[in-house]
Amino acid sequence: MLDELDLTDLSGRSGLKWVKATAVGAIPAWVADMDFPIPDPVRETLRSAAGGDLGYPAWDDDPRDNPLIDVYVERTARRHGHRPDPAGIRLFTEVIQALQAVLHVTTAPGDAVAMHTPSYPPFLETIERMGRRLVPLPLTDRGEGHVFDPSPLAGCAALILVNPQNPTGRVFTERELSGIATLAREHDVLVIADEIHSDLVHDPHRHLPFAPLAPERTVTLNSASKAFNLAGLRCAVADVAVPRVREALDRLPPMLLGQPGTLGVLGTVAAWEHGDPWLTEVRGLLDRNRRLVAEAFPRQRPPEATYLAWLDLHELGDDPAARVLTEAKVMLSPGPDFGPGGAGFARLNFATSRPVLEEVLRRLETIRSE
Amino acid sequence: MLDELDLTDLSGRSGLKWVKATAVGAIPAWVADMDFPIPDPVRETLRSAAGGDLGYPAWDDDPRDNPLIDVYVERTARRHGHRPDPAGIRLFTEVIQALQAVLHVTTAPGDAVAMHTPSYPPFLETIERMGRRLVPLPLTDRGEGHVFDPSPLAGCAALILVNPQNPTGRVFTERELSGIATLAREHDVLVIADEIHSDLVHDPHRHLPFAPLAPERTVTLNSASKAFNLAGLRCAVADVAVPRVREALDRLPPMLLGQPGTLGVLGTVAAWEHGDPWLTEVRGLLDRNRRLVAEAFPRQRPPEATYLAWLDLHELGDDPAARVLTEAKVMLSPGPDFGPGGAGFARLNFATSRPVLEEVLRRLETIRSE
Ligand SMILES: Cc1ncc(COP(=O)(O)O)c(C=O)c1O
Ligand SMILES: Cc1ncc(COP(=O)(O)O)c(C=O)c1O
Repeated sequence: MLDELDLTDLSGRSGLKWVKATAVGAIPAWVADMDFPIPDPVRETLRSAAGGDLGYPAWDDDPRDNPLIDVYVERTARRHGHRPDPAGIRLFTEVIQALQAVLHVTTAPGDAVAMHTPSYPPFLETIERMGRRLVPLPLTDRGEGHVFDPSPLAGCAALILVNPQNPTGRVFTERELSGIATLAREHDVLVIADEIHSDLVHDPHRHLPFAPLAPERTVTLNSASKAFNLAGLRCAVADVAVPRVREALDRLPPMLLGQPGTLGVLGTVAAWEHGDPWLTEVRGLLDRNRRLVAEAFPRQRPPEATYLAWLDLHELGDDPAARVLTEAKVMLSPGPDFGPGGAGFARLNFATSRPVLEEVLRRLETIRSE
Repeated sequence: MLDELDLTDLSGRSGLKWVKATAVGAIPAWVADMDFPIPDPVRETLRSAAGGDLGYPAWDDDPRDNPLIDVYVERTARRHGHRPDPAGIRLFTEVIQALQAVLHVTTAPGDAVAMHTPSYPPFLETIERMGRRLVPLPLTDRGEGHVFDPSPLAGCAALILVNPQNPTGRVFTERELSGIATLAREHDVLVIADEIHSDLVHDPHRHLPFAPLAPERTVTLNSASKAFNLAGLRCAVADVAVPRVREALDRLPPMLLGQPGTLGVLGTVAAWEHGDPWLTEVRGLLDRNRRLVAEAFPRQRPPEATYLAWLDLHELGDDPAARVLTEAKVMLSPGPDFGPGGAGFARLNFATSRPVLEEVLRRLETIRSE
């Protein structure tokens, strides 16, 4: 049973999500990890690998032999009808590492980098710390869901296309993606497509990989870390379809970027090959939870993907998460951290059991009606 | 029992060491992994971590919170009487990644980089692939063990000081290290001290960390991967005592170099905190094996550290490992791969059980007397 967590189980967990929240007596509904146990096949694979050889793996001589490459290619083909070229697959320890590596070899300080806003905070920080210039593509909601104008793409060196989007949970449509592809081609923009949430799309929405729309300019990033709750494994995949980006990465010192460990690779392989029954069950729970959140926030559109809800809580001030933490003892992610468009919002992580989520929603209801 | 492997157990293992050798029907005595099972506390830690949270670890917000930093500092202080400054510790997925990162930020293409030869092949390849110029410090043995002349250090940007040395198994003495420190200071040479084999020093030799001799110019690299047989965890530590190197590393995009996974960190912590009884037992076995090798090669000095023997097999031609593989079905590491001074040699990995080692030595004896 994935869904059995109750409020008394929250302490004693070791992850960041729990440690910081329980230290201040709050329910953790922030960091993007789920409260569900990992898939059994992943746990069994890790346990049995821990009992076997942990020396240099068989694929050590040639990174092309890494079993994760084929598993990623086959799964992407099976689920999304798009077959990446195995020759372009590179492994990283994390999506954010892959993002920074690609930006590092393809753009220069001062270059304009577009991204939908509000945005996943570490990506905003990446652009700032790397001295690139953020060109926001604001997602605005006038009651019809979040929409955006892609025209600021003109003049940008790169677009970081997070789809499904964090924090709004938007799943971009074929029309939106084609519009981006056309503009990107017209203005020679490199598209770095972060599709880490693509396994968490709710019906009737469908994930469309961006790469087939503009293979000559797309680098796709993915990982089992979000959909299978495995961020600590530190294992991510980049599908570098663009030859000049491949070559630029290959000009770096060959081991400079390090690599995921054997357990990260084998755990990810197990998730992607044998985790789908678990994923189906989890998506059912997330869909149920999404409806519970929608009942509590009837004027807001539920997310089309992810276990994250971007809550308009303007009535609680510019940084609602701060008040919710002190007054309602629930830890949300502060809206202002998500950049332009974040003031008055907070992000709720609803990947938890029904009793925990109901208690969170009850507490939010209480503080909003005060 | 660590020592129970027999010849029939060699197939069916998953690591590089076994896969390539058993595919050609040879006994694997090449890649630097040991045939012994990993320490129980490491296995138990990995198994229990696989049953818990594998989301973002508690130290994710601030790399300074990583538990491995303190464990490394305390262990180095305890074993070697030298206490690194925790502020200088950086984690990497591998020693070779750390080496390339340090060379990348401190030297430029064309710069001279000194290293004792023969050398660990991936380091030779590193120097070549990064366009640096190898300045060899040849280790020569005129019957008194391997000695070297440090004077080529003058004019070098950096020295890669592998101590204990691979493949000769030399443990440099205080006199040798002080000589290097003096010259390095005189000629402003950065010293990158790879001390990955420092836990595998045989009596009466003693490991002396280089950093205390020249803290203003030393970066020390280490990992549990060799002494505890955990290369697949991909977790290494750099003690960056030199402020300008720290600053140069910190100027890279903050996540560019990635990081070890939770299991790599926790497994290394377990090895360094609770692995010493296992290590004591393993060192006993290695010492016994070193004597078995010495009996078979009475005219050669046994290694002072490591489980690697650098065998003079000139009677078998320039690349003895090639003949030993085809004719004796033992896979050794080819001497020529170790660069200048490698012709006529092969490296034997003797970290195996007595029956396997005896069979290896028997086969070598047969081919040598043919
Ligand atoms: C859009 C997006 N990209 C990347 C990540 C993080 O992935 P990683 O830990 O592999 O960098 C997250 C985590 O929440 C995310 O939401
Ligand atoms: C001297 C030396 N350094 C480094 C390594 C490899 O360490 P890593 O796998 O962490 O790069 C080895 C492995 O044999 C070695 O002998």
